[in-house]
Amino acid sequence: MSTPSALFSDLLTSITERGRSLIGLKSAVGDGMPQAASLIERCEAVLSGRGEASGTALATEVILRYGALDAVDRLTFFKALLHRFGPDQDKLARIAKAWLAEKSDAVAADLHFTSEPRRQELLRRLNRAPGGTRALVAMRADLVATVKTDKDLAAVDRDFAHLLASWFNRGFLVLRRIDWSTPAIVLEKIIRYEAVHEISDFPSLRLRIDPPDRRCYGFFHPALIDEPLIFVEVALTDAMPGAIGPLLDGERKAVSPDKAKTAVFYSISNCQKGLAGISFGNFLIKQVVEDLRREFPKLETFVTLSPVPGFSRWLKSANLAHLSVEDRQLVAKLEHKTWIDEPGLPERMKRVIEPLALTYFLAAKRDDGRPVDPVANFHLGNGARLERINWLGDISAKGLRDGAGLMVNYLYNLDDIEKNHEAFANNAEIVVSNALKKLVKADARGRPAEAVGR
Amino acid sequence: MSTPSALFSDLLTSITERGRSLIGLKSAVGDGMPQAASLIERCEAVLSGRGEASGTALATEVILRYGALDAVDRLTFFKALLHRFGPDQDKLARIAKAWLAEKSDAVAADLHFTSEPRRQELLRRLNRAPGGTRALVAMRADLVATVKTDKDLAAVDRDFAHLLASWFNRGFLVLRRIDWSTPAIVLEKIIRYEAVHEISDFPSLRLRIDPPDRRCYGFFHPALIDEPLIFVEVALTDAMPGAIGPLLDGERKAVSPDKAKTAVFYSISNCQKGLAGISFGNFLIKQVVEDLRREFPKLETFVTLSPVPGFSRWLKSANLAHLSVEDRQLVAKLEHKTWIDEPGLPERMKRVIEPLALTYFLAAKRDDGRPVDPVANFHLGNGARLERINWLGDISAKGLRDGAGLMVNYLYNLDDIEKNHEAFANNAEIVVSNALKKLVKADARGRPAEAVGR
Amino acid sequence: MSTPSALFSDLLTSITERGRSLIGLKSAVGDGMPQAASLIERCEAVLSGRGEASGTALATEVILRYGALDAVDRLTFFKALLHRFGPDQDKLARIAKAWLAEKSDAVAADLHFTSEPRRQELLRRLNRAPGGTRALVAMRADLVATVKTDKDLAAVDRDFAHLLASWFNRGFLVLRRIDWSTPAIVLEKIIRYEAVHEISDFPSLRLRIDPPDRRCYGFFHPALIDEPLIFVEVALTDAMPGAIGPLLDGERKAVSPDKAKTAVFYSISNCQKGLAGISFGNFLIKQVVEDLRREFPKLETFVTLSPVPGFSRWLKSANLAHLSVEDRQLVAKLEHKTWIDEPGLPERMKRVIEPLALTYFLAAKRDDGRPVDPVANFHLGNGARLERINWLGDISAKGLRDGAGLMVNYLYNLDDIEKNHEAFANNAEIVVSNALKKLVKADARGRPAEAVGR
Amino acid sequence: MSTPSALFSDLLTSITERGRSLIGLKSAVGDGMPQAASLIERCEAVLSGRGEASGTALATEVILRYGALDAVDRLTFFKALLHRFGPDQDKLARIAKAWLAEKSDAVAADLHFTSEPRRQELLRRLNRAPGGTRALVAMRADLVATVKTDKDLAAVDRDFAHLLASWFNRGFLVLRRIDWSTPAIVLEKIIRYEAVHEISDFPSLRLRIDPPDRRCYGFFHPALIDEPLIFVEVALTDAMPGAIGPLLDGERKAVSPDKAKTAVFYSISNCQKGLAGISFGNFLIKQVVEDLRREFPKLETFVTLSPVPGFSRWLKSANLAHLSVEDRQLVAKLEHKTWIDEPGLPERMKRVIEPLALTYFLAAKRDDGRPVDPVANFHLGNGARLERINWLGDISAKGLRDGAGLMVNYLYNLDDIEKNHEAFANNAEIVVSNALKKLVKADARGRPAEAVGR
Repeated sequence: MSTPSALFSDLLTSITERGRSLIGLKSAVGDGMPQAASLIERCEAVLSGRGEASGTALATEVILRYGALDAVDRLTFFKALLHRFGPDQDKLARIAKAWLAEKSDAVAADLHFTSEPRRQELLRRLNRAPGGTRALVAMRADLVATVKTDKDLAAVDRDFAHLLASWFNRGFLVLRRIDWSTPAIVLEKIIRYEAVHEISDFPSLRLRIDPPDRRCYGFFHPALIDEPLIFVEVALTDAMPGAIGPLLDGERKAVSPDKAKTAVFYSISNCQKGLAGISFGNFLIKQVVEDLRREFPKLETFVTLSPVPGFSRWLKSANLAHLSVEDRQLVAKLEHKTWIDEPGLPERMKRVIEPLALTYFLAAKRDDGRPVDPVANFHLGNGARLERINWLGDISAKGLRDGAGLMVNYLYNLDDIEKNHEAFANNAEIVVSNALKKLVKADARGRPAEAVGR
Repeated sequence: MSTPSALFSDLLTSITERGRSLIGLKSAVGDGMPQAASLIERCEAVLSGRGEASGTALATEVILRYGALDAVDRLTFFKALLHRFGPDQDKLARIAKAWLAEKSDAVAADLHFTSEPRRQELLRRLNRAPGGTRALVAMRADLVATVKTDKDLAAVDRDFAHLLASWFNRGFLVLRRIDWSTPAIVLEKIIRYEAVHEISDFPSLRLRIDPPDRRCYGFFHPALIDEPLIFVEVALTDAMPGAIGPLLDGERKAVSPDKAKTAVFYSISNCQKGLAGISFGNFLIKQVVEDLRREFPKLETFVTLSPVPGFSRWLKSANLAHLSVEDRQLVAKLEHKTWIDEPGLPERMKRVIEPLALTYFLAAKRDDGRPVDPVANFHLGNGARLERINWLGDISAKGLRDGAGLMVNYLYNLDDIEKNHEAFANNAEIVVSNALKKLVKADARGRPAEAVGR
Repeated sequence: MSTPSALFSDLLTSITERGRSLIGLKSAVGDGMPQAASLIERCEAVLSGRGEASGTALATEVILRYGALDAVDRLTFFKALLHRFGPDQDKLARIAKAWLAEKSDAVAADLHFTSEPRRQELLRRLNRAPGGTRALVAMRADLVATVKTDKDLAAVDRDFAHLLASWFNRGFLVLRRIDWSTPAIVLEKIIRYEAVHEISDFPSLRLRIDPPDRRCYGFFHPALIDEPLIFVEVALTDAMPGAIGPLLDGERKAVSPDKAKTAVFYSISNCQKGLAGISFGNFLIKQVVEDLRREFPKLETFVTLSPVPGFSRWLKSANLAHLSVEDRQLVAKLEHKTWIDEPGLPERMKRVIEPLALTYFLAAKRDDGRPVDPVANFHLGNGARLERINWLGDISAKGLRDGAGLMVNYLYNLDDIEKNHEAFANNAEIVVSNALKKLVKADARGRPAEAVGR
Repeated sequence: MSTPSALFSDLLTSITERGRSLIGLKSAVGDGMPQAASLIERCEAVLSGRGEASGTALATEVILRYGALDAVDRLTFFKALLHRFGPDQDKLARIAKAWLAEKSDAVAADLHFTSEPRRQELLRRLNRAPGGTRALVAMRADLVATVKTDKDLAAVDRDFAHLLASWFNRGFLVLRRIDWSTPAIVLEKIIRYEAVHEISDFPSLRLRIDPPDRRCYGFFHPALIDEPLIFVEVALTDAMPGAIGPLLDGERKAVSPDKAKTAVFYSISNCQKGLAGISFGNFLIKQVVEDLRREFPKLETFVTLSPVPGFSRWLKSANLAHLSVEDRQLVAKLEHKTWIDEPGLPERMKRVIEPLALTYFLAAKRDDGRPVDPVANFHLGNGARLERINWLGDISAKGLRDGAGLMVNYLYNLDDIEKNHEAFANNAEIVVSNALKKLVKADARGRPAEAVGR
């Protein structure tokens, strides 16, 4: 039996119909499409009283016209957002002075609202159009690409990011399971957006989402119902796995999910370039952990099986002076694509590479003091701990190229998450498992202290 | 056949379950509930790194604790939002000066984001909790009541209003038909929120939503699925009606909706005190007009049947010097509750009251130059025109008391809406029907010019 | 999170639209409605090749025309079903003789299909029309009423009952929870169909379905989506209740459903007169027991709180010779409506009435050897056991009138259900609780054996 | 906006969960699975009182045990259904004699119900189990395969077919559009079941269902929600097409569906072997025609583009004596796979083959007087008319092999359907277009009358 769901069926239909009518409009826009100038003029109209009166018609027109711009006109449009749709400078100067003179709460509020660029209100009004949110996310994707070369557009991007972060607040997101009963229009995007372990086609996708010991969950926003924002693939297993190959093997024997002890998060992918910089992963993992615990009370361990995307690059420039000549030769073997197939060689390399990996995780830092490895940064920042380093965890071409075949487990223990996070955020401390602590100590005994990390 | 709606069914369930678990939490909160001080401390935690790490747990706790505050503690909490959760004043002063010195786009952006009170981010983080949006709307309702006596809280209210307006952007709202297949939990609220022509119980409600010539539509937000934000009741009729009584008569003969020429908007009610000041009515009416036109291509006229809530009050203080003594006596009859039953009297009064009503609509202005009548203000502001004044349109106790029994039709002609709105917004011009224009002229001939209005 | 439900949303819309178009057709049927004769002729057409070709149009017409018949024409129509739409007698005679001559499987099959009255195929073809199932259930309701006076129509009714029982097979029914989120169109019918403890209006209904310790479940058929077939009301309680009053008390303190030990089935109502004789209750109770056990693992006891509708009637004609004069006077008090209010009287009567109730349940039998009490018959036939007799269990006017204020608990213990059922079905044995067994023994000692029952 | 669909969301969830729990049960059935004998014993129990008492548990067990039988045991089981679960012969003999003696309506009814084999009630009771309908359809598929070699099982198959036809009555079916928002679990089956023009994978499927000028519709039964029963693929085009290649071309330019004049049914596939002999196609086409007409009022022509699967076979044994030697050589060219590529040859063959195709359609008859061509039989039986014969309509390997590259259009004109059907059904008359009539006449002039057909 289920929760009655009267209330949402309509939602869908209306939203979809509005989406369809939008498509209808799109096709209706003629060939003689106006340029950026005329678009900007219409944006002014959207902000005027006419915009109020017209309901959503003017906003819809702007969105459709934007969609027909070429790259040059788009740049002109973004520049106009920067220069013409900023705050009212005269008024802002007046209020800023007033506030500096008398720092009251009321004038502070005035200062904030007066300093708001007009483009923020423009974006809010454009969002009123059917399909508006989708269009603004697409516009932001264009902007993100543009701002790389036109740095002064960063101020515009900041406004987009601010509004989108507010609108895509976790409170508005909905977690949905993605399985073989999910509409193809969504599944197709899972295939397209998978960023960690490639999915080639629908039959391959099915192996990830249909077996009883496999799960996939994504966050969706009601205004973008057929677009996953982020999704995670989960395997239910007996024990913490050390390699991705057996996990993805279509011939493996399925574990009964009721008996599984471990949930493995083995792939997390962001989907929307237009939502770059807005973080969903932390919430997604925690929600999925909660939901899985409720559904399968026997689950004890929540852990990732993660790539180490920056290891090979780091290794190339790392100081390996503390290694013996022989060990350095073993490291150099990584450059040869065939080392993995050379009998006995991988076993010998393990002894050398694993301590280097430890150093990589614990001592290799960016300028801001956080780990070089982006995946480590994400999970440690979420409050996970570094649990295990797995030699030969990913022997795919990509795995060998980027991570020397290594994979890592990060452990999510809900009781420790806040503590781990605080240690990481405040003191840049990386919490590791006892087993890794021992490895660190053993390694430290064998080589110069400065290479060991903290 | 229908649009496939795979995508939303999940949405509902997840949202509902999150709502239910919230209720579960609510009941779990013990008796020894902490006061405002401890709540404020937790708000600080929500804004700290801990808030990031804990997912939504801390935010949920704040929301539950807020719900247990009494009025005194709520005031303390709101004051803390004002004083402790404003912007960083030192930083703001620095940036304000920098901007005054050099008005670059980038610094302007800094100024805007630096001036944002910390409470805005707090509210965004609270919204992450299950049921967070609902809780914040309820909190705003408390605040709206509180700010009436504590005016300095207006700065806090401005932040709530700003965020809620952004979140309840029309682009996120969903129009749903409300009929006899709608869940009772929603219908119950229609009964409760109806603000124009009272609905006593479910059987009375049914007469408004179930007959084939009656429609009801509401806007809903996905995060508040069982809460209408605003709704409108519509009658499909042959001709433009002049009185509410026959329209609501349960014994009337239903018109076949396929043959109806006229759609009458006879009741519009806002539902959420926590969303006060955020306007949905304009969008609602226009969307319903569009949808009805698509469904019933024979509909020609979209018109309201509206009350005149300020007429009686205005009449009491109006200058009636241009009237004859006899006419003034007729006006005075309105004070007697029984005039309506006195044979022949209503007919005689009509001749006197109708021109006064015209004056009321066309000449009675607030300080800002807009009409005194709030309903007129709303519809004229939406671009409707004043179409007809109906003597004895509403002879209920309330109708007689507030509007001397008058009702008014405002006409929504989609082709004229922008033009009408501009005339009204820019020049305070009230567009009236030709019939009313003639009445104005006739009336003007009979009395001093200054009373006639523009 | 939930199961994706893409697949059914469409179902609804299509079904509903077909229903609506049916209504459309209904209103389109003119005044000059043809009589039974013309209807019968069209039924022949439905069975002919034309019926095949026309899709569902002819069937739809028959259904609409039937709906416009008056009682006299309906009788004519039913008689025609009996006489004109029976089997092909000549062919049947031939096959019957053939089978009697040589009893092969193949000819037996021929005999069965040849003996099928043509009206069965007619009904199957009428069912093809939009809204056909609904219409046939309504037709059967007419027939059930008619057959009471026209016994020879029983053969027609047997065909209706046979087809409807096959179509409303439990495998096609769907159990749905009914709560405050259920559409009003369904709730309205719960109010109307409640047959045990009257529900006066929506607010009263809400007390039965909305509190956390109250549940209501119904069976629905996909072709009759807004029509409950049968529903049961359940209270979650600490202990087995003895009286209905406190259970229905709107002021009672709700039990936390997670802590409840007992689920009480206190009202079961059949809804469709057109499905008379098709039994759903057995399946409903067992399904609800299963579902509740899954949802609330702490539930230990599944029990009814049932009326004793035949007790008063039985008592009037019962042989009370074994009672003392005084006791007989106490029994006679039941005729006075005020006995319940007489101080001390109810307590004194209990001693006399309770043993009589035991006799009623254990010894009062119909001609077929089954208990006189219809409710007992139902639950004992389902495999429940007679658990407890509650004096003053229902002191409503109806409860006092029909059952002398008594109520009974029947216990559903899933482990014993088959055993109990077999004992009841094969040996007419009534399984009772140990406590009642003792009462039986105690009672037996005090009076002549022949009154005690088995 | 949409129809509220509260009512069905639950349906899905319950049905699905019951389905899942069934799967759960399936996997729980141990290795030491009992044979046919023990299964038959349990079938007896299902028919006994125990079956009544156990709810659906026993039925579920039978279904699971059946699923574990091997082919030998399945045959034993089917034979038992034939011999042990027939009617009660003694009683049947008694009633048959009684009816032959006195042919009353009541005894006729007794005869019908007494002659019902016990297996019918067994099947109805098995259907009560969760997933029962699905299991019975699968069982019938086994039976259909078995009865080919064991003809005496036809009597059992007749009962299955009878019950399934009643349960899959068109009134219980739901038409659903199948598009890119349809769950993958359904789309996968469309790929698998497509029987006319093969679909290789999901991207190919998308070209059939996703473009705006392509539609796909299927019938579904509520008890088999993820299983299409039959589906039809439709192209919206300007004009009646003569070849399948351009229709399926992924590079073609899409027609705006609002402007399309013609709807082309170019593929109809039955999906369920277990429902063999139960006809859905007639209803499907007529429903889709109705729905498309409502959605696209500009559609004027509803036509098929159909294969001619029996032409090549017929041609091999056809009497071609009336042809010239040269023409017979042209016909013989069909045996060479390369004729289609030989410049000028196809054009020359057309003149010879087309008249032969006319003869095939109009004169080649089965023993029952109906056309040899199964597709012609289906559409003509539905009331369509033979509209056009298209030389080189399908030059795929299959099209060339089976139909010599021909395709045919059948026209569905709703106004003529009954008339056409009657002519075909009663007089075996094949209605053809005027253009074809002329061809017939022209052809008749050129050759002996007996080859022309009617």
